[in-house]
Amino acid sequence: MQKQELYIIKIGGNVIDHPEKLGAFLKDFSEIQKPKILVHGGGKLATKLAEKLEIPQEFFEGRRITNEETRDVAVMVYAGLINKNIVAALQKNGLDSIGFSGADANLIPAHKRPVKTIDFGWVGDVETEKINANFLEKVISEDICPVFCAITHDGKGNLLNTNADTIASSLAVALSAHFEVNLAYCFEKNGVLENVENENSVIAKITPETYIQLKEKNIVNDGMIPKIDNAFAAIEKGVKSVFILKETFLKKLINENNRTSGTEITQ
Amino acid sequence: MQKQELYIIKIGGNVIDHPEKLGAFLKDFSEIQKPKILVHGGGKLATKLAEKLEIPQEFFEGRRITNEETRDVAVMVYAGLINKNIVAALQKNGLDSIGFSGADANLIPAHKRPVKTIDFGWVGDVETEKINANFLEKVISEDICPVFCAITHDGKGNLLNTNADTIASSLAVALSAHFEVNLAYCFEKNGVLENVENENSVIAKITPETYIQLKEKNIVNDGMIPKIDNAFAAIEKGVKSVFILKETFLKKLINENNRTSGTEITQ
Repeated sequence: MQKQELYIIKIGGNVIDHPEKLGAFLKDFSEIQKPKILVHGGGKLATKLAEKLEIPQEFFEGRRITNEETRDVAVMVYAGLINKNIVAALQKNGLDSIGFSGADANLIPAHKRPVKTIDFGWVGDVETEKINANFLEKVISEDICPVFCAITHDGKGNLLNTNADTIASSLAVALSAHFEVNLAYCFEKNGVLENVENENSVIAKITPETYIQLKEKNIVNDGMIPKIDNAFAAIEKGVKSVFILKETFLKKLINENNRTSGTEITQ
Repeated sequence: MQKQELYIIKIGGNVIDHPEKLGAFLKDFSEIQKPKILVHGGGKLATKLAEKLEIPQEFFEGRRITNEETRDVAVMVYAGLINKNIVAALQKNGLDSIGFSGADANLIPAHKRPVKTIDFGWVGDVETEKINANFLEKVISEDICPVFCAITHDGKGNLLNTNADTIASSLAVALSAHFEVNLAYCFEKNGVLENVENENSVIAKITPETYIQLKEKNIVNDGMIPKIDNAFAAIEKGVKSVFILKETFLKKLINENNRTSGTEITQ
């Protein structure tokens, strides 16, 4: 039997931080005519709140260390303010939805990142094989759209701050057994660009073969390499395609199969 | 066909504010052997956070006016920090649960309190007849415990701060068509007391008849009267019993039908 299509869509902080952009995106998102899951990042709200509360921010080689107070702020902002406002907006648009953290229904088990040279604090690494795909399938079959914030838990009573891109790709992999999953990362550019300065130089499709060439010719810039590597890792684990595109093109891509913008990463 | 029993349990701010009391309560709660829903109040965390953020607090005749910033703090603390930490703790205890606001799955529609002499701001009055009891029944049938914070929505994209006691009684009434519902309000005293000074003077049972006598004799103190009136209102709309008791007696009451403490309000 052919599996049903499912879109897992990650929306980043740049949209979250702009109420008008976010409103327009959520309207488009509500009009997507396929089963879908939304994963949202955090934007700058949590950092601003931590600053106002004078919570000391620690970094190691540019990476944030999530102390307890910073984690609590993340939970308040991501799982509370942003997640529930997105759900309320989707309901207004007529799209039934539920906001989830990874703790709810034990959807996304994780563990605190192991301490090697440095303790990054309350940061979670997802245990993809333990994702509760059965329950998510039931929710989707009720025509309810799951909306995930990037908070997971360790099963020992601790909430964990987690990378939203990782949440999206882990959900995509875990749900591939149940659905034909497409993963879409919405970001501020039109897609993966041949020339970062030129928004019209979108590479329409990247396959393992063309990716080797693109890297050899130094066409793909360094910042994109981990994203594309992660995309191929998801595809190897059963995800059908990964799209990288501007959020304003998402609805057209999915409803009309309009490929005039965005990059598709596929086998 | 006999309806399945369901307990809706409201836990108040006094327990929320004490991590040790809350941990002990959640352990007991996890061991209740009946289908159940938890509704939690907010405690003092939201007020403390609003103070730290120097959000001006307005009152009218002692009642808070919920301006936009205060509402956002309530959403962060109730729907985010408290709700998700409770869910994580219940998962640790082996009780599968999902944290909900009223916006999720459109579970608790509400409307902004109408402005009469005063605008109380982003405060919601529950529309009990629109509660999504069907979806809650499905969640409960999956052996998942719903955990509600006292945030609802108006269907127009606005989140609303709502009274947690009202959430509990509205859920109880709405679910009475599907379950035999018992509603339990946990608070800091042993029950409704004949003598407020004496914790051993618990009135074991109040019926409409005995309530008239208690009021005539001025035995029930003024603070309890609205609670008891609300209890009878819920019973008139189909709820089986309303219990008012200390949270430490809850597990014995439900698992062992131990009535040595607490007050039962019933027909």
